[in-house]
Amino acid sequence: MNKIRVTIWHEFFHEHTNDDVAAMYPDGMHECLAAALQADDLEIRTAWLMQDEDHGLSDDVLNSTDVMLWWGHALHDNVRDDIAEKVVQRVLNGMGFIALHSAHMAKPFCKLMGQPCKLRWRCANEKAIVWNVHPTHPITQGVPLHFELEREEMYGEVFQIPQPDDLLFITWFAGGNVFRGGCTFTRGLGKIFYFHPGHEDCPSFHNPNVIKVIANSIRWAAPGTLIDLEGNKSQKMLVGGDV
Amino acid sequence: MNKIRVTIWHEFFHEHTNDDVAAMYPDGMHECLAAALQADDLEIRTAWLMQDEDHGLSDDVLNSTDVMLWWGHALHDNVRDDIAEKVVQRVLNGMGFIALHSAHMAKPFCKLMGQPCKLRWRCANEKAIVWNVHPTHPITQGVPLHFELEREEMYGEVFQIPQPDDLLFITWFAGGNVFRGGCTFTRGLGKIFYFHPGHEDCPSFHNPNVIKVIANSIRWAAPGTLIDLEGNKSQKMLVGGDV
Amino acid sequence: MNKIRVTIWHEFFHEHTNDDVAAMYPDGMHECLAAALQADDLEIRTAWLMQDEDHGLSDDVLNSTDVMLWWGHALHDNVRDDIAEKVVQRVLNGMGFIALHSAHMAKPFCKLMGQPCKLRWRCANEKAIVWNVHPTHPITQGVPLHFELEREEMYGEVFQIPQPDDLLFITWFAGGNVFRGGCTFTRGLGKIFYFHPGHEDCPSFHNPNVIKVIANSIRWAAPGTLIDLEGNKSQKMLVGGDV
Amino acid sequence: MNKIRVTIWHEFFHEHTNDDVAAMYPDGMHECLAAALQADDLEIRTAWLMQDEDHGLSDDVLNSTDVMLWWGHALHDNVRDDIAEKVVQRVLNGMGFIALHSAHMAKPFCKLMGQPCKLRWRCANEKAIVWNVHPTHPITQGVPLHFELEREEMYGEVFQIPQPDDLLFITWFAGGNVFRGGCTFTRGLGKIFYFHPGHEDCPSFHNPNVIKVIANSIRWAAPGTLIDLEGNKSQKMLVGGDV
Repeated sequence: MNKIRVTIWHEFFHEHTNDDVAAMYPDGMHECLAAALQADDLEIRTAWLMQDEDHGLSDDVLNSTDVMLWWGHALHDNVRDDIAEKVVQRVLNGMGFIALHSAHMAKPFCKLMGQPCKLRWRCANEKAIVWNVHPTHPITQGVPLHFELEREEMYGEVFQIPQPDDLLFITWFAGGNVFRGGCTFTRGLGKIFYFHPGHEDCPSFHNPNVIKVIANSIRWAAPGTLIDLEGNKSQKMLVGGDV
Repeated sequence: MNKIRVTIWHEFFHEHTNDDVAAMYPDGMHECLAAALQADDLEIRTAWLMQDEDHGLSDDVLNSTDVMLWWGHALHDNVRDDIAEKVVQRVLNGMGFIALHSAHMAKPFCKLMGQPCKLRWRCANEKAIVWNVHPTHPITQGVPLHFELEREEMYGEVFQIPQPDDLLFITWFAGGNVFRGGCTFTRGLGKIFYFHPGHEDCPSFHNPNVIKVIANSIRWAAPGTLIDLEGNKSQKMLVGGDV
Repeated sequence: MNKIRVTIWHEFFHEHTNDDVAAMYPDGMHECLAAALQADDLEIRTAWLMQDEDHGLSDDVLNSTDVMLWWGHALHDNVRDDIAEKVVQRVLNGMGFIALHSAHMAKPFCKLMGQPCKLRWRCANEKAIVWNVHPTHPITQGVPLHFELEREEMYGEVFQIPQPDDLLFITWFAGGNVFRGGCTFTRGLGKIFYFHPGHEDCPSFHNPNVIKVIANSIRWAAPGTLIDLEGNKSQKMLVGGDV
Repeated sequence: MNKIRVTIWHEFFHEHTNDDVAAMYPDGMHECLAAALQADDLEIRTAWLMQDEDHGLSDDVLNSTDVMLWWGHALHDNVRDDIAEKVVQRVLNGMGFIALHSAHMAKPFCKLMGQPCKLRWRCANEKAIVWNVHPTHPITQGVPLHFELEREEMYGEVFQIPQPDDLLFITWFAGGNVFRGGCTFTRGLGKIFYFHPGHEDCPSFHNPNVIKVIANSIRWAAPGTLIDLEGNKSQKMLVGGDV
């Protein structure tokens, strides 16, 4: 079986400017995730904003990526529009896309959602409890019915997103908020998962339940096998026309 | 315009056995609701378990009800199966059905859902905050984006329901739980709304936001105008056949 | 009660270049629709691509529109990007949007959907039957369970759209195709309805059932009453932040 | 890896009373399906209405079934209520359920749906075309975007079902009808798929695309791994309570 080719894209900014973040993620969040997600069926690489002039996302990298993870926060605007658009096109052609934490406002995610995806937020690093409300979904298999994040940034309703295909997790925050923090979407042939844990100075990417969810989502989002109009296997966007 | 004919059905048990409940709802929850919901476009009556041998739900009452509210808790099993089945048939033929609080386990609701609708619960009468996650739905118009219940019974996930048509409210509980506490469903021609506030010894039916939600839901659940196969207006269940 | 302010936007091109279209819609499709939709609770105006340098969509017009109908086909690319973006922003802030026929590829619709919304098509002006698969939805009230279009352009699956909130109509085409031709979506505070009839040289906008569906959709898509964070009525996009 | 234990349940009546059916399915539809679905990861057995006093569905059989296929038509009423109820309970506890063709009116399916699932029908054995409208779903992988059934019983809208979780296939019938003929649902922990081909005197279970869809649906419907409240793997229904 072919391995799933995963690219973990990271803004990789706070690690350079905030000592707490650097201490939490000494090699960067992307490398922390890459190590935690390591598995026989995955071929993982990382890319980041300042890696090269294309943010590490050359056509070669994009075209050889089956599932992309995306973490961005402070520098969404620094992502080139043409690169964001290429990511969108790859998703429409079948690449899975896992939007982590503050990627709710990342250019590719908002373009795919058709709207900015604003929410309430509060930087109190308060206790959060993630509740699994869809225990039969592939992404929740082997994940407890609830698990705690000792501290996370509060992200809360109203979360301005289109109706998700499936709502998987609702998170409780100590300060009185709730959040539809795990949602799936489809755009074109691409499967999309948004998952809220992962503020830069919180240890969520060291949490085994968070990693389990992300690991499941990668397998779920991997491109399927489309039989095109000529009967051939394909992973390309369907083409309209006089057919 | 014809008025919407509303029947508020109540178990009407706790008011007789618990002084706190009797003090909170001296005429019974059903009469409290009837008074609070009074409006020019509604024709409201009440019915209750021990009203007569049919629980107040004769064929005449059922056939002249457009929207039924249902509150039951301790005595679900005392509802006759044939009456529960008649309620189900009326919903399939277009009667709206508003299941309040512990009606998640009422016979008509569970039959319509196709499963028992269990949940976590905790009688701590703790603080709850109801979050509106669907601000464009008719049931949430004029309702704040969040409002507080000073104390309510905790109902929490995993709420074992089929996927709702629309998720309108998620409630936060002080003890660490979340709950999809406002959900819509359709069965046959009947529109169904489940809403969680209303524990017998809590003042939720005196809360104007709770009343506003229920009032909106009555208008939303009122039967529509179906054009049947012969071109006539109808509110009867569609009939299969060789057509 | 305030009237719903409707703007019918039309490309208004084929009427000038094709005699059949001009004969079918002598004053243009927009005026045909405006006349057919006339009602006491609606305040209808029209706008078109070449009306002025803003395509008839000045800020004043946009800001005083509650529901916009959009018909475009051959000249999608001639719509200025900044005007398309203003329409998108108005939808996110609550303006209803009814995308008619070939507006499935219009700039505002595709931006809101997050993807180009391609489909199969065939210009055979073949017989079509529109099947109502959601008889309880406000948009289908008073509409027969099926009705015929004597001839329409075939639009068929796979229709590349995000999962609709609700699927209302599926159309059968004589040539062997099916189409999810009536779908609702929500983006921000805006309600969106796509409806497929209305090819320029077909008489669909003279069909009373088509008009009934569009008329219903206008009432359905009209903005609601949002209570904002300060307790005031509002129709503005929710604002994220530390709240 | 453990095999998926599949039980194909069949009414097995028409084969005894209709020569055409007997010729089409000499060993019965159940054995035709069992042979066609044979695979290394499946352990397949069959059961039928008159097999024994429990319709072949003893507690042992039920408790060792991961996914059940169900075909019934003329003798729905002959299925004992207590057996139908046991099947429902197994689904709620995680058993997958694939309802084939006329099983839309089978006792277990209707109980799970919460309503009788009537539809239009016409025994004309007309040409049908199955359109795949959800090309990213696991059940549609490797299935063409459309395929033909040379003749099938017409099943058409309005199909009286609850909103499906996902709509996968829409079928076109030569006589002018459309049908949401491939739909998924969840009840309790059980995944459910309804698929319309398979009239007794039509060759649909000899069609490789039909078999491919059913084969995919078995893998999709197989029970997952639930982590229960004590952290143990479980496939039992969640239990409500003071937790």
